[in-house]
Amino acid sequence: MTSMLACVNGDLLPLDSASLQLGDLAIQRGYGVFDYLKTIDGRPVFLDDHLDRLDESMRAMRLVVSGGRATIRDQLSRLLNANAVADSGVRITVTGGYSPDGYTIATPNVILTQSPLALRPEPAGIRLITHAHRRQMPTIKTLDYLMAVFMQPIVRERGADEVLYHLDGFVSECPRNNLFLIDASGRLVTPSRFVLKGVIRKHLLRLAPPELDACERDVGFDELFTAREVFITSTTKNVVPILAIDGRPIGDGQPGPITRQLERLLREEIERQVSPP
Amino acid sequence: MTSMLACVNGDLLPLDSASLQLGDLAIQRGYGVFDYLKTIDGRPVFLDDHLDRLDESMRAMRLVVSGGRATIRDQLSRLLNANAVADSGVRITVTGGYSPDGYTIATPNVILTQSPLALRPEPAGIRLITHAHRRQMPTIKTLDYLMAVFMQPIVRERGADEVLYHLDGFVSECPRNNLFLIDASGRLVTPSRFVLKGVIRKHLLRLAPPELDACERDVGFDELFTAREVFITSTTKNVVPILAIDGRPIGDGQPGPITRQLERLLREEIERQVSPP
Repeated sequence: MTSMLACVNGDLLPLDSASLQLGDLAIQRGYGVFDYLKTIDGRPVFLDDHLDRLDESMRAMRLVVSGGRATIRDQLSRLLNANAVADSGVRITVTGGYSPDGYTIATPNVILTQSPLALRPEPAGIRLITHAHRRQMPTIKTLDYLMAVFMQPIVRERGADEVLYHLDGFVSECPRNNLFLIDASGRLVTPSRFVLKGVIRKHLLRLAPPELDACERDVGFDELFTAREVFITSTTKNVVPILAIDGRPIGDGQPGPITRQLERLLREEIERQVSPP
Repeated sequence: MTSMLACVNGDLLPLDSASLQLGDLAIQRGYGVFDYLKTIDGRPVFLDDHLDRLDESMRAMRLVVSGGRATIRDQLSRLLNANAVADSGVRITVTGGYSPDGYTIATPNVILTQSPLALRPEPAGIRLITHAHRRQMPTIKTLDYLMAVFMQPIVRERGADEVLYHLDGFVSECPRNNLFLIDASGRLVTPSRFVLKGVIRKHLLRLAPPELDACERDVGFDELFTAREVFITSTTKNVVPILAIDGRPIGDGQPGPITRQLERLLREEIERQVSPP
């Protein structure tokens, strides 16, 4: 298999020769934003949602790309055609650029990378630990995963798979996932504040059957352990049941029936999206 | 003038051809640490302090460099010899490396860059604005300057030069500087918690005359405006008087006599450091 191509400021290059000079503000100061989308059978899933969110991230962080969304969409299209990989993850990164003083936002560098994504069966469920933290700009998809990367060895030491952030008695999100509960009253809830609003989160709220009375609201830490079911969502993994948090089982410690129902509804929606018209 | 050389994982390369591949964890996740030191007449200033702090940053962030401090010291020595620039700033960056999954710490990339530093006369004083924020890992010199870079356009819009962080009624630091006050009782104070402990900060506390009764303690936001003098410190600029904060003058709005005295003591100490033995 030949090396995948990446797109750096509009140029298609083999991934292993694609690079940024040291003066880029991502390397100097961790400054940049990104988005991440999936392709199935060569078709991007929820593309407009991801481009909308990337636009919003760039606007919030004052990153101005010449030609804007049309440029990025064109680069994406050329990359997908050139690589011709059916099932993949595509990351679009927009950095602060080559800053003359290493501190001031410059002309962004725009980087698209693509990697094959095996469409594995969904995991039967994972375990979380909790950590008191809130991302500094939680509603923006910045490059800041300092705490997330730092916590990974601790997560593994404690026999878990990922960390869930909470602060001041309320839970928010995992570093790369949104959190959902079927609460003690049977309602589908997800934290409303201090979270990155995920694309899967949005569609799941839309697809949920009316009897689940889905809502976004503050979710107390203690609700984790009275919830009937807990699951997380992400572009890569769709819906993943949470079996235990901090070593305490959630519900009966098995994937719950509503989680399974929602996973199926979401999968069917994605299949409709990527079906040829 | 020829291009400066950089050192990337031990290799000396022209700066403009020195780069990181896109998979580096600094570009992917903003994960890494650095330190920054000054040379005068080709001699590094407070070198052991900077290497101590870099060691501590790497240890805290689980970044393990083969050969450790000896390797970095050797690379620094080769870089300084090769570039032969008298007065310069040297940045040593240690990133999370080429992570196979873009999320887990790998073998760090170690990058040294050097740039000429004009030894300008110290600025007569600068203006600050304040912002409610605390860095997520304030005692570690990570790459996270997301808020600092984000705030720069706001700082300029408000006619100021830099931002000062505060939270819960206490001030902490500027993004690249420590804060000092001559408080209402004439004592030299600097915030004790939630700050990066700067090398100049350390030496200034040591050099301060006994009658200033120097101490590290919590500093209330309101103390800014009852202080006799306020100044900031950094490796690049040593001691810089603060003339106004949020548009309100500090003291009589001019650099204070104790600030000037401390600046002189520090400058003399640095001159001793870099004098041939």
